[in-house]
Amino acid sequence: MHLVDLDTPSLVLDLDRVEANIARLQAYCDAHGLALRPHIKTHKLPVLAHKQIRAGAVGIACQKLGEAEVMIAAGIQDIMLPYNIVGRAKLERLARLARLARISVSVDAEVTAAALSDVLSAEGATVEVFIELASTIERAGVTQVEEVVRLARLIADDLPSLVWRGVLMYPTNAANVGYLDAVCRALEAAGLRAPVVSGGGSPTMFKQHENPWVTEVRIGTYIFEDMTGVRGGYFNLDDCAATLLCTVVSAPTPDRIILDGGSKTFTLEGTAPYGHLVEFPQARIYAMNEEHGYVNVAECPVKPHIGDRVRVIPNHVCAAVNLHNTAYGVRGDYVEAVWPIAARGLVQ
Amino acid sequence: MHLVDLDTPSLVLDLDRVEANIARLQAYCDAHGLALRPHIKTHKLPVLAHKQIRAGAVGIACQKLGEAEVMIAAGIQDIMLPYNIVGRAKLERLARLARLARISVSVDAEVTAAALSDVLSAEGATVEVFIELASTIERAGVTQVEEVVRLARLIADDLPSLVWRGVLMYPTNAANVGYLDAVCRALEAAGLRAPVVSGGGSPTMFKQHENPWVTEVRIGTYIFEDMTGVRGGYFNLDDCAATLLCTVVSAPTPDRIILDGGSKTFTLEGTAPYGHLVEFPQARIYAMNEEHGYVNVAECPVKPHIGDRVRVIPNHVCAAVNLHNTAYGVRGDYVEAVWPIAARGLVQ
Repeated sequence: MHLVDLDTPSLVLDLDRVEANIARLQAYCDAHGLALRPHIKTHKLPVLAHKQIRAGAVGIACQKLGEAEVMIAAGIQDIMLPYNIVGRAKLERLARLARLARISVSVDAEVTAAALSDVLSAEGATVEVFIELASTIERAGVTQVEEVVRLARLIADDLPSLVWRGVLMYPTNAANVGYLDAVCRALEAAGLRAPVVSGGGSPTMFKQHENPWVTEVRIGTYIFEDMTGVRGGYFNLDDCAATLLCTVVSAPTPDRIILDGGSKTFTLEGTAPYGHLVEFPQARIYAMNEEHGYVNVAECPVKPHIGDRVRVIPNHVCAAVNLHNTAYGVRGDYVEAVWPIAARGLVQ
Repeated sequence: MHLVDLDTPSLVLDLDRVEANIARLQAYCDAHGLALRPHIKTHKLPVLAHKQIRAGAVGIACQKLGEAEVMIAAGIQDIMLPYNIVGRAKLERLARLARLARISVSVDAEVTAAALSDVLSAEGATVEVFIELASTIERAGVTQVEEVVRLARLIADDLPSLVWRGVLMYPTNAANVGYLDAVCRALEAAGLRAPVVSGGGSPTMFKQHENPWVTEVRIGTYIFEDMTGVRGGYFNLDDCAATLLCTVVSAPTPDRIILDGGSKTFTLEGTAPYGHLVEFPQARIYAMNEEHGYVNVAECPVKPHIGDRVRVIPNHVCAAVNLHNTAYGVRGDYVEAVWPIAARGLVQ
């Protein structure tokens, strides 16, 4: 099967670029003695998680238990869930997973850690536990150094079935170095040095070695790259590995075409333009409805016609992949793989 | 099973509200002699399409062939695809569907109509054809009255296997009355009166009778309603039938909580707030990452705690439903149905 045989819209992965992207970040991490733990929320494909591990990754990160269940069933053995797992149903699922693979989770509150310990103990299972640190994005995470130390002591000494594993933060960029430094020093002073300091953040993925505390990095988007990163200056257009193959279905005026992909193919994330047309770089996707992409082609020297097929690099590839049931892996024009996106939509 | 037994995030449908919403628009259409053709892109559930038809709908609209295939396999017999179907693979699928059910499609260009006719003729099948009219949203659609007449004549007289069915427009609101009127008059004058004039648009769904030409209305979101419509003044908060059941997984500061649903549960469509917390109406979802909802609870007289479960009405329900594999239908607290969202993600 060749690219020309795929109907549209289709999520197409350039496997040469995927492999080059995997190799590049792994080489960087290897050169700096950093462990790499790719975040699979970007691709949700067991086959690519295995590629990442074969290249040298120490394990993977998943954001949802459902993703971890799929990855463990596919043979992955070391999974971090950088997330507060809350509620008895999820904790019991977590306990089951902890019998099958090496599992770590994060907590940012005593009540969360205590419930984790209670259920894991009742189930006779053990998990490794990170404390999530607050950062400048002001999402989850412990905001006070003393509270980190108190929680670390609880995990390390008082809560059975939990193994103290360290701290994680997102992103570990220059703006967050100060707090990370203060936390790591305080933990050392308390005799609770973090075995692992897990950092992340695509924009500074090649600067993680500048942070003396970081031992492991979690990065997801590097495997495909996307237009958010290209425009942000930290990804390269020629490395973008995931495109949405679309068809021009309407050309109602000389300057406007309509693609058969819209917000249910790409998401509306980021701002316009909502992606980049590989074959028509001067075109501009200025709006989207659910199944329509509005493209201004006024600046295109040769204009696309009804029936033409185009490849579009999405703004936010992790969000776009999450809309699709199938990914098509290609080498040049040859479709080498048809992969169900096994961990897609597993919101729990 | 009860609501308390559902894990989070879960897409929960209040079936009493669903049925009331179906009945209300059907009663309006019946009172005004309008045919109602619900657009199933909102729910993607065969069982709800059947509810709509049992209530009096003449058929359904689907946006993608894949959706139509699922609905026909589930027993639906009359489907409009208000979309240009382009490319041989899709046209052959369309021809197969046309043997199983009454199918109509739209076109906005001669090349599209001619290809449709060629493939349908080769396959020995027939479809009904609408011409899509341009509107003020400047999406697809024919922009010139004379071109509509020319294309209608082609369809009616010259292109085999196509049956002239009429015109469709979105939205048929006051801003578009002029062009619709001019087109309908010109078609009449040419002896090509449109058998069906299909309109739509949620904001003016109860004003479709004011347009003398409209004979049939396509509306999707009315079955669930959402915050975009509540804020726009055309839906009611108390009629919103679809919520995302979420858990508070972090409360890092007194004024901020984090929900276990983010852009992969809700989408980022619309502007902040990204949904409405039913139990905490003063809370404000001011940001989302993929699996995190950031909520400001400063104004809440009683604040949610870690482990609390909340129901959130999404901004754009059609987009949110499209992220989920399963919908849970409830009556009060009782979970009456667990439905796979059969037509989800069928982007082709």
